[in-house]
Amino acid sequence: MTGSTIQLDHGSGGRATHELVQELFATAFNNKFLLEMNDSALVEIEAGRLAMTTDSYVVDPIVFPGGNIGSLAVHGTINDLCMCGARPLYLTAGFILEEGLALKTLREIVAGMADAARKANVFIVAGDTKVVPRGKADKIFINTAGIGIVPPGINIGGHNARPGDAVLINGTIGDHGMAIMCKREGLAFENEIRSDSSSLHELVGAMLESCPHINVLRDPTRGGVATTLNEIAQQSNVGIQLEEDALPIREDVAGACEILGLDPLYVANEGKMLVCLPVDAVQEVLQVMRRHPAGRAACQIGEVVADNAGRVVMKTRIGGLRLVDMLRGEQLPRIC
Amino acid sequence: MTGSTIQLDHGSGGRATHELVQELFATAFNNKFLLEMNDSALVEIEAGRLAMTTDSYVVDPIVFPGGNIGSLAVHGTINDLCMCGARPLYLTAGFILEEGLALKTLREIVAGMADAARKANVFIVAGDTKVVPRGKADKIFINTAGIGIVPPGINIGGHNARPGDAVLINGTIGDHGMAIMCKREGLAFENEIRSDSSSLHELVGAMLESCPHINVLRDPTRGGVATTLNEIAQQSNVGIQLEEDALPIREDVAGACEILGLDPLYVANEGKMLVCLPVDAVQEVLQVMRRHPAGRAACQIGEVVADNAGRVVMKTRIGGLRLVDMLRGEQLPRIC
Repeated sequence: MTGSTIQLDHGSGGRATHELVQELFATAFNNKFLLEMNDSALVEIEAGRLAMTTDSYVVDPIVFPGGNIGSLAVHGTINDLCMCGARPLYLTAGFILEEGLALKTLREIVAGMADAARKANVFIVAGDTKVVPRGKADKIFINTAGIGIVPPGINIGGHNARPGDAVLINGTIGDHGMAIMCKREGLAFENEIRSDSSSLHELVGAMLESCPHINVLRDPTRGGVATTLNEIAQQSNVGIQLEEDALPIREDVAGACEILGLDPLYVANEGKMLVCLPVDAVQEVLQVMRRHPAGRAACQIGEVVADNAGRVVMKTRIGGLRLVDMLRGEQLPRIC
Repeated sequence: MTGSTIQLDHGSGGRATHELVQELFATAFNNKFLLEMNDSALVEIEAGRLAMTTDSYVVDPIVFPGGNIGSLAVHGTINDLCMCGARPLYLTAGFILEEGLALKTLREIVAGMADAARKANVFIVAGDTKVVPRGKADKIFINTAGIGIVPPGINIGGHNARPGDAVLINGTIGDHGMAIMCKREGLAFENEIRSDSSSLHELVGAMLESCPHINVLRDPTRGGVATTLNEIAQQSNVGIQLEEDALPIREDVAGACEILGLDPLYVANEGKMLVCLPVDAVQEVLQVMRRHPAGRAACQIGEVVADNAGRVVMKTRIGGLRLVDMLRGEQLPRIC
């Protein structure tokens, strides 16, 4: 492969595309499914419930503390599969590249994807590359789609929260969004704020082994914890009551939010999940979660109630109740 | 939903995103899988070989004679599944929208997708919408990923061409690419050149019923017939010999190619497929193809040979042989 940047003919479908695919993508994602190089990949699948999901990633900057757009895309799609209780199996990757993107940057991003996939034991089995002229996209956009198998007996969904359920989270709030914003705005703290971007499949697997009757799992990405809890409250037609005092927020994240005028409840997370489950399972599940690196700081942050159906309210530190609405307006563009 | 254009907060993940999803996407794609509105869609699947594929679409212009970027995205992914002999089942759709895109245009594109999916009896079960600021993308990019089941006994792939096989095509060459180029360049002909964008699942189904032993199916999209035949020749380590006289090309497409200095063998198609199959099945399969609207002009254009392994050669009208290489350089940017 010649040159140091992406050129239009890397997207032509001709020789330059083939070289890019062979020398960069096939080498990094190296697996027998992809290497067949047909219009579709063929994988063997067992009968059952298949989970299927997709996300496009347009995050800016494309490399940030704790990851890059590539690792983020793989983690994000794996997590969307996990949130239905599925065991993630196979991903696809679609690249839209801007003419002039440094090949070195693309290599770094693709390495991040390959590494994230390998760690989660999923295969990137099919892909596509398009190149648009300079100024018609911003460096790189990535789409990942994925499939996984949901084991029998698992029934997780946003409509399953029940009054009396506890609401848990597996760690601190707002880390991803503030890592992106600090990098974008050039804010420096004593300790760099790092994205929490990571795959939750192992943690979810351990939790389901201990408690197959988890009702809801959902990852609070764009729109943050507040928006995701509102979705659950609406889909399940229940109220959700948060305890402000219980919300785990890193001090530097809280500080950065204050400087930028943001509410951490609306800031994106990429390695967090909200859990609704019967209250009698809370202690055991919290123990399981805390044994896993992705769940060290797991805690209960609220409960599902019958009152205020479709709404989220928060008991504030001074004892009042305030309504926590869904995000309105664009708090953080291009956060994922 | 207020306003007439896409705004940044339509991509926030908050209230505006929810309204867009509910009022536009969910209404158009209307199916029980999508309407669950969880992080992944759940579908029941039989055990077997699953085909999985993805493509991103960046075509410019986004609406063109014979389709739009939405219908193209659905047809393209359905066809990639068909080319492995799979029965297409479920698609995902990822949208990257530029701030300021007219909602009317988005509605037209989404209607094109919904219509294409409905006609093919596939469901768009999961989706994602991102919005980037004005100037950071060009109106709309769409990714579609898809899955389908390959029936037992089917073994189709780019590595399966055998010396002696006939090479067929289901119709005229270069229609899609020239429809895009004529629209982009403002070239007008007496009869408008229309894209051949369409789903090939029905035609492939009928062909496989008549001849389960088809060796290769591949759709000559970017890079055109020449590039796709080179891929097959390399993967199968065979030669492919084309008959120039046998290539079906519409007169207006040939004329437009001449004006723009393009070779129709390298121009993209979006409703065509190349077929390699044992010569004793040719007459029956051609009859089956010609009975279907997508195969009316089906014909044999060449044969697979043992000589010239990895190469494509063409017997020219005047009786010479010329090498037909893979596309080099970017002939037609943003053609799909």
